[in-house]
Amino acid sequence: MTKDTHSGLFLTFEGIDGSGKSTQARRLAEHLRNLGHDVVLTREPGGSPGAEEIRRLVLEGDPDRWSAETEILLFTAARRDHLERTILPALSAGKVVICDRFADSTRMYQGLSRGDLRALVDQLHQLMIGREPDLTMLIDMDPDVGLSRAKARQGTEERFEDFGPELQHKMRAGFLSLAQDFPDRFRILDGGQERDAITAELVQITLQALYQAPV
Amino acid sequence: MTKDTHSGLFLTFEGIDGSGKSTQARRLAEHLRNLGHDVVLTREPGGSPGAEEIRRLVLEGDPDRWSAETEILLFTAARRDHLERTILPALSAGKVVICDRFADSTRMYQGLSRGDLRALVDQLHQLMIGREPDLTMLIDMDPDVGLSRAKARQGTEERFEDFGPELQHKMRAGFLSLAQDFPDRFRILDGGQERDAITAELVQITLQALYQAPV
Repeated sequence: MTKDTHSGLFLTFEGIDGSGKSTQARRLAEHLRNLGHDVVLTREPGGSPGAEEIRRLVLEGDPDRWSAETEILLFTAARRDHLERTILPALSAGKVVICDRFADSTRMYQGLSRGDLRALVDQLHQLMIGREPDLTMLIDMDPDVGLSRAKARQGTEERFEDFGPELQHKMRAGFLSLAQDFPDRFRILDGGQERDAITAELVQITLQALYQAPV
Repeated sequence: MTKDTHSGLFLTFEGIDGSGKSTQARRLAEHLRNLGHDVVLTREPGGSPGAEEIRRLVLEGDPDRWSAETEILLFTAARRDHLERTILPALSAGKVVICDRFADSTRMYQGLSRGDLRALVDQLHQLMIGREPDLTMLIDMDPDVGLSRAKARQGTEERFEDFGPELQHKMRAGFLSLAQDFPDRFRILDGGQERDAITAELVQITLQALYQAPV
């Protein structure tokens, strides 16, 4: 995969809770900015004013107030808004967009943890979103380590972190399986490495993509 | 079309703004209740606590804050919630559900007034909603009369009433065209009649459907 800098680069981070996605996304953004790149760092669910409102509707309040299907629709609405208002305009301006979670997280969390809804998620994605990232950084790590890290920073939105170790193992396997489904855009990083080593690897992969070298 | 009372009856009202849908839906509900029927009177967008929250998200605030596609997703999320939490449980309990607007309104308003999105609306409906009403009462009337009535009771949610006479004429034609697309369930009533005459016709059509006589 090669990228022309003028068309921007759409890069997502995925991985189980506590794998360090948000930290590494921020660190990668800082490095790229220091190198003179125009970077938009965003996240899902949310990432645009409208999508943040939908995020609150989904993640706050009684976890059972939405069915899995309604929740998927709400997340898709948020993603559509995020794509239209934040991601696509930045890419058109030639920027690097780094997004902490995107459609792969929906494929995983909704498809795996809330019933066998993967087919529905895929159809809805194809119909209403379409766009896939240019690169997806999967930070792979021991689910038990990830879970203990995630628990250490629990806040008000603990819907997904609440699911326990067994599910975390399933999710790791699920993300690795997604990486096999989309080998062209997935890069698997060892989240058990030192933080700086992971960042260095991320920077290298991203620069290769930006400067059109074969990744 | 025939209906067993034990499986309930799902009846919707459609028509342009100011056609008297809400008034007639309420009057039909009262008549049926007086005859001993268990009736749930509801409306869209909204009709369940979650759907009402989504309704507020869509209809309040800056009208341009959502794209047509995001708005369709939000309406579909609201409809899914309404269907799961209000409509289907009532039908399972053998009740008559009378709903002021349903998917036909989305087909009309989103498909016609906000770009040529009808195909998308239909695909999303098929994927996430599926269920059609047993009967749809289309109150057909002169768009100019409807518009002046609608303007007389304008409130905070005037998104659709704001579109002017030309669009109202298009919408009338659009609803009549939908009636041709779904002849089995659509009944066209002359909204220019006296209010009591319309109600009497509605009661007759509904009782025929409830008591399994051919409508």
